[in-house]
Amino acid sequence: MTKAEFPTATQPLAAPALGEPYLLTPGPLTTSKATKEAMLRDWGSWDGAFNLVTAEVRQELLSMAGVQDDSFACVPLQGSGSFSVEAALATAIPRDGKCLILMNGAYGQRAAKTLDYLGRAYLTLDKGDYLPPQPDEVDALLKANPDVTNVFLVHCETSSGILNPLREIADVVKAHGKSLIVDAMSSFGAVPLTINEIPFDVLVSSANKCIEGIPGFGFVIIRRTVLEAAKGRAHSLALDIYEQWLYMERTGQWRFTPPTHSVVAFRTALEQHASEGGVAGRLARYTRNRDVLVAGMREMGFKTLLEDRWLSPIITTFFSPEHPNFEFKRFYEELKSRSFVIYPGKLTQAESFRIGCIGQIDEHIVRQLLRAIGDSLEAMGVDMEQTTA
Amino acid sequence: MTKAEFPTATQPLAAPALGEPYLLTPGPLTTSKATKEAMLRDWGSWDGAFNLVTAEVRQELLSMAGVQDDSFACVPLQGSGSFSVEAALATAIPRDGKCLILMNGAYGQRAAKTLDYLGRAYLTLDKGDYLPPQPDEVDALLKANPDVTNVFLVHCETSSGILNPLREIADVVKAHGKSLIVDAMSSFGAVPLTINEIPFDVLVSSANKCIEGIPGFGFVIIRRTVLEAAKGRAHSLALDIYEQWLYMERTGQWRFTPPTHSVVAFRTALEQHASEGGVAGRLARYTRNRDVLVAGMREMGFKTLLEDRWLSPIITTFFSPEHPNFEFKRFYEELKSRSFVIYPGKLTQAESFRIGCIGQIDEHIVRQLLRAIGDSLEAMGVDMEQTTA
Ligand SMILES: Cc1ncc(COP(=O)(O)O)c(C=O)c1O
Ligand SMILES: Cc1ncc(COP(=O)(O)O)c(C=O)c1O
Repeated sequence: MTKAEFPTATQPLAAPALGEPYLLTPGPLTTSKATKEAMLRDWGSWDGAFNLVTAEVRQELLSMAGVQDDSFACVPLQGSGSFSVEAALATAIPRDGKCLILMNGAYGQRAAKTLDYLGRAYLTLDKGDYLPPQPDEVDALLKANPDVTNVFLVHCETSSGILNPLREIADVVKAHGKSLIVDAMSSFGAVPLTINEIPFDVLVSSANKCIEGIPGFGFVIIRRTVLEAAKGRAHSLALDIYEQWLYMERTGQWRFTPPTHSVVAFRTALEQHASEGGVAGRLARYTRNRDVLVAGMREMGFKTLLEDRWLSPIITTFFSPEHPNFEFKRFYEELKSRSFVIYPGKLTQAESFRIGCIGQIDEHIVRQLLRAIGDSLEAMGVDMEQTTA
Repeated sequence: MTKAEFPTATQPLAAPALGEPYLLTPGPLTTSKATKEAMLRDWGSWDGAFNLVTAEVRQELLSMAGVQDDSFACVPLQGSGSFSVEAALATAIPRDGKCLILMNGAYGQRAAKTLDYLGRAYLTLDKGDYLPPQPDEVDALLKANPDVTNVFLVHCETSSGILNPLREIADVVKAHGKSLIVDAMSSFGAVPLTINEIPFDVLVSSANKCIEGIPGFGFVIIRRTVLEAAKGRAHSLALDIYEQWLYMERTGQWRFTPPTHSVVAFRTALEQHASEGGVAGRLARYTRNRDVLVAGMREMGFKTLLEDRWLSPIITTFFSPEHPNFEFKRFYEELKSRSFVIYPGKLTQAESFRIGCIGQIDEHIVRQLLRAIGDSLEAMGVDMEQTTA
């Protein structure tokens, strides 16, 4: 599909198969037919043809991160995104290092838990459920803790949908000469994040988020000097991305059986990403999705958890209506019966729910969703005029 | 497909798509069209519908292992089979335990390497490239090393194709009261392995071997008491199968994003496995594949690495012909141009090559392969009458 052919506001995206709901979730998400159809073939995982796909994918991901030379490597890893985050942490943080974890949700918390397993020292700046870490707070912490070697930040903290101030924080981290690890799981591919703009050492993401692939692997984009210093540092054979990288460089193959179908589907997803105009094109579509969603929801009387300036184009959290008839489980099922699956997770503090804006979704679908939400509320007997929220 | 409909010797299996080679490899392998087509849909990974698939798959795998009660649990894990082996070793071997690794090929070696990462003590019985560990050797080692807590055995050591004497060794291990961990990666689903016959504590396998699924996850079938004793023992968050199990039991969901498409395809693969007559049916087809392969190869003048009684129905190693014109790389490419991809790996000692018998392959296809091998040799100018092997 060439750029011109990509569905515009007047050309709706193709609907999923009959009876298949739209996934308004932060990944796995609704993927294109072509991406799924790429899986209708089996590939020998040692074969040259498959090695070429792997090489292509790794190169494309480096380009997307703005890498122009061989100062960075892209290392894909089997498993979900958390496997890649763990591998990245074990690789980038020296055994006697110390990591400052900037935390404002589930994925920052998970990084801390991971370091507990790894036995690596860390301290946290914990902003609770949805407040952004501030650059001056980071600055103060780095001043007070000169033994910190690495800073970990979640770009889009998917648990609230907040888009954290990555650039400002990256500048502070750089000014202190520390090594920045970015969990860009739910942002990479849709929110610009290039090495020219953001001085990171390590970036982690996965196949099934904004690049709209099929789950099965994650990937780490890592400064080569950091990777090379990590020989023998890993705690796990399977998660040793230094060894994974070395083997891939030597043989073109994955060390252990790759999720062949997911990798090949990802190549198709990358082609579609390029056809849509790359990161800028995708950002435009997701932003439009979010804008239509937020406007429509506010019109119905819903309120967003976050102020506008922190809203990501990835996923948005809305307060649950304070109405005796509103019950999330029922709301979820009502929406599902109308062919929309939303994210069923919960925040720890606020009574809220979340709706994703990513995947093969456009504003037409978002408008259908808004109608379905209205209908669901009606079916539940929730009159938004009577809510106290 | 009902049992009666399963292709018999006179009803060849459907060929792969045009231009797609048969994979005569030990997985990823040629899967059925229906299994791949099951991936043409996206699933919400938190949704009840997907949770049901996970539950069904876990239950089916327990049944396949002959588990009738809740004395064992099945814990699937994202990533390749090696991820599950590592997770199983970290779970089953106490931190102050000691494992006897029975080694006769790459996968026994990999287990030892894994324990190096984990910092667990072990000793090995290393039989080189392809000799079977003998029950009396295991008995002697366990007598001499009473501090051993676990024994690790690869059922089918895929690097040579040897089917190790699991039952005899399991009995010895049991007599010593030790805990047996079986890597049944390449045998489970095609070689009978039930808890009634083989007293194991832990069995590891994966989606893309004899059950003929799509790569993306492995699974551990583990005695519940062993699992429960393993709380807090894991070295890795991602590979902590105790936590994975606990979370799955509580929520029905995977802890981190599952390879949804691969899981759903696996359910289809399991249905086909049942239709074929379960383990017995699959064993019959693979055995027939191997018998036709070995007979045909011997007729051409090839020799198997192993004596007949050690040959598995999974993959067979043949000595490379000692002929000046034989070069493996060329042979591989010649076969590939004839639509057959064989396993390109090598043993450390013997000049040999391997051909898999598993996947959607039947004796008709094996006969086509034999013709392709004959033609390839002719194209290379290798006259088998002139070989010295
Ligand atoms: C920011 C972030 N980090 C990490 C993860 C974990 O990824 P996975 O669920 O693939 O393990 C997610 C998943 O949604 C995420 O959004
Ligand atoms: C016996 C055995 N163990 C372990 C593995 C490793 O599995 P994976 O390549 O999926 O990591 C294999 C793969 O072929 C195997 O045959």
